[in-house]
Amino acid sequence: MAATSTIDTLTDELTGALASERVTRGEALREQHARGEAYHPAALPDVVVFPESVEEVVAIVERCRARRVPIVPVGAGTSLEGNVNALHGGVSVDMTHMNRILRIGQEDLDVTVQAGVTRKQLNDRLRADGLFFPIDPGADATIGGMVGTRATGTTTVRYGGMRENVISLKVVTATGEVLQTASRARKSAAGYDLTRLFVGSEGTLGIVVEATLRLYGVPEAMGAAVCSVPSVDAAVQTVIQTIQLGVPVARMELLDEVQMDAIVRFSELPYAIAPTLFLEFHGTDASVEEAAATVAEIAQEHGGGDFQWSPDQTERNRLWQARHDSYYAALALRPGARAFATDVCLPISSMAGLIAETRADIDRSDLLAMVVGHVGDGNFHVMFLLDMDDEDEVARAKAVNDRMVRRAIELDGTCTGEHGVGYGKIPYLELERGPVGMALLGTIKQALDPDGIMNPGKVVPLAP
Amino acid sequence: MAATSTIDTLTDELTGALASERVTRGEALREQHARGEAYHPAALPDVVVFPESVEEVVAIVERCRARRVPIVPVGAGTSLEGNVNALHGGVSVDMTHMNRILRIGQEDLDVTVQAGVTRKQLNDRLRADGLFFPIDPGADATIGGMVGTRATGTTTVRYGGMRENVISLKVVTATGEVLQTASRARKSAAGYDLTRLFVGSEGTLGIVVEATLRLYGVPEAMGAAVCSVPSVDAAVQTVIQTIQLGVPVARMELLDEVQMDAIVRFSELPYAIAPTLFLEFHGTDASVEEAAATVAEIAQEHGGGDFQWSPDQTERNRLWQARHDSYYAALALRPGARAFATDVCLPISSMAGLIAETRADIDRSDLLAMVVGHVGDGNFHVMFLLDMDDEDEVARAKAVNDRMVRRAIELDGTCTGEHGVGYGKIPYLELERGPVGMALLGTIKQALDPDGIMNPGKVVPLAP
Repeated sequence: MAATSTIDTLTDELTGALASERVTRGEALREQHARGEAYHPAALPDVVVFPESVEEVVAIVERCRARRVPIVPVGAGTSLEGNVNALHGGVSVDMTHMNRILRIGQEDLDVTVQAGVTRKQLNDRLRADGLFFPIDPGADATIGGMVGTRATGTTTVRYGGMRENVISLKVVTATGEVLQTASRARKSAAGYDLTRLFVGSEGTLGIVVEATLRLYGVPEAMGAAVCSVPSVDAAVQTVIQTIQLGVPVARMELLDEVQMDAIVRFSELPYAIAPTLFLEFHGTDASVEEAAATVAEIAQEHGGGDFQWSPDQTERNRLWQARHDSYYAALALRPGARAFATDVCLPISSMAGLIAETRADIDRSDLLAMVVGHVGDGNFHVMFLLDMDDEDEVARAKAVNDRMVRRAIELDGTCTGEHGVGYGKIPYLELERGPVGMALLGTIKQALDPDGIMNPGKVVPLAP
Repeated sequence: MAATSTIDTLTDELTGALASERVTRGEALREQHARGEAYHPAALPDVVVFPESVEEVVAIVERCRARRVPIVPVGAGTSLEGNVNALHGGVSVDMTHMNRILRIGQEDLDVTVQAGVTRKQLNDRLRADGLFFPIDPGADATIGGMVGTRATGTTTVRYGGMRENVISLKVVTATGEVLQTASRARKSAAGYDLTRLFVGSEGTLGIVVEATLRLYGVPEAMGAAVCSVPSVDAAVQTVIQTIQLGVPVARMELLDEVQMDAIVRFSELPYAIAPTLFLEFHGTDASVEEAAATVAEIAQEHGGGDFQWSPDQTERNRLWQARHDSYYAALALRPGARAFATDVCLPISSMAGLIAETRADIDRSDLLAMVVGHVGDGNFHVMFLLDMDDEDEVARAKAVNDRMVRRAIELDGTCTGEHGVGYGKIPYLELERGPVGMALLGTIKQALDPDGIMNPGKVVPLAP
């Protein structure tokens, strides 16, 4: 933690660089920037700043660097692994004022935005041009935050995640320089891939201020389907066969019976309380119908129930809104509870087994938790609903999570598919990467952030 | 260059670590490892070694490191920018003996191979399982080499390139440690993306010894089409509209009239000598026919000629073999000539303009050169056929290339879409990345290869 006098001086300097109303030490704003949506305890920054230009971000980094004060970049604050908590105090750099869409490339199918633009804001603007940006984490995150955690979503099985859809970034580095990571070319063999070095770096290597993203034309036809299945295993087998056949599914989501119970109540949907696949298809009228028929047939082979097909847009929107609201639906099941959300990702052939083990573990531990999966990618979430004051309950949830994450790593999977490491998952990252991998992460951190000021204590553990 | 005595000692040490017949200083093998398929002058290594295990690669790196002798990893040697030339002598590590396919994941659609496996070898093996690996540079490159140059190919518009299709790598680092860059999960938010740091690093950060790759099921139906168009601009407009509409094309290649002349002669094909699109569609019978009909219509709107459609496999193979042979077809147009191949990639909206400028430039300079493009990606190649003894001719070709690459960078493109930087394109890399970007590449190189032994003088310029 920096001394109070250092923070005082720094605040004066920042107030000189930015308009004074955009530099605050007020308790309310500091509280607001002390955590994401996760269960991790709040950790307040000393100061919150709201830059409005790249130059202001440079000024902030230069001043913090001169005084060795930590910097925590923050977007919408929807992260789930303590990614934005100001563990060592310092300055939270709230990027939400930098929310302009700078350029839309209709012919090139790309867009350049400031980091504070949210995904819904972007898609609202793109709709008029018949374009869309597909990555959809549940929350209305900022693009900068989605870059930081290497976000993915329900459409990743078809369109890829942030890793695949960021063309280039503008970054203010930890030494206060402005870096454009790449050109606007779709592909390049020109040197190390700096773009993907910053995607997923959670603000520990620099501050993303602009992003150029791939866009897609809104498909001529879309259709959605809901299909209940006798078991998680049946769902996964359906998914594996669908992918092997190359059926062009745009979305393929699994909700277990507890999650279905939550969303049927929350969103008033007429579905059975059973493991269920939510599917979507993008293409032409003919290709969408053909793909849906194929998947319906595969699901039936695995004992799937009624394949409820809907090409209607209102119906489709309702379905996916319900899916995206699953986090809030779950919370509504136990008023007053806090959610402890976790995710793993592993080879799909091992996924059904791990989900089954985890479900048995949850039930045995007498916990309320739901499972939702981006099954096409081998990625699934568990959300525990907890009374955070009940230490024993929290400990049991952590134990279930611990076994699940360790098993995922044993099965050649990863400790997080899309939430990021933050500080909550550093111990698992160490297990996954091993000493050689962790040493290399540390080498990169040290090389790019020699003063250790960028979101310290996240992703890479602090030097002991 | 290392002193002869150092090389003598090192050779003894390497012979101790490997079987002696796999360590050679013979002129013939050194000549063979002195260059790729490019025009760049040969630069001989002092020693060539053929490791057969990860442990042997570690032993090589340790010994070279102890004596500060350069290491140049080499695959099939098909590279085009001087990527494998041993500019500072040292040890060429020929990876082609490490050519085993280690594991095929039928349900997970992935495979783990040693770096020396070639793409054709891999696909020959996968065929029996109904799977394939899509990335297809013209030559039968090794997977390790394709990782090194971040290779792409004719199917990248649909399936992505090496950047998108490498799941994980095993790397022997410059300090002799064995690093697994990631788990086998399809996606991960677990820390910095080490996989993509090594993809495209051209052996300058470590030696790739194994790769885990994404696979795809062989589509139920495939169909190819050939369509001549009145101009390059008409071709590009056809492509832009096709992509905007989301028509699922698997391949979309442009050959200009000079290249068509070459392949019509070389492969005895019955096509017109005009700018031509080669297309392929993957899906079901119905979806493939629908997609082809849509593209035929779009092409016709832009003045396209006969849309020659063929669902027949023999016909399709002949077509794509001809496309892959375009390099050799071009060489056959001027016996005794050497090819000088170059590539750029830029936003597709600017591509037709740059191709037209470049074609005018070629003609004005009285050179023989052909243009081939992966137009869906904004990537195109120019291949000059040169008498390398004619200094003036070589200088004129270099001048045309220089203008083209500079223009591509001005148009927010990249100096190389898929050939890599080697040492031939370092000056353009500097132009493209600027001082901040180049400094960061140097920082990464220094951090990961502190002794500067890994393929020195490639990608990142040597410190002055």
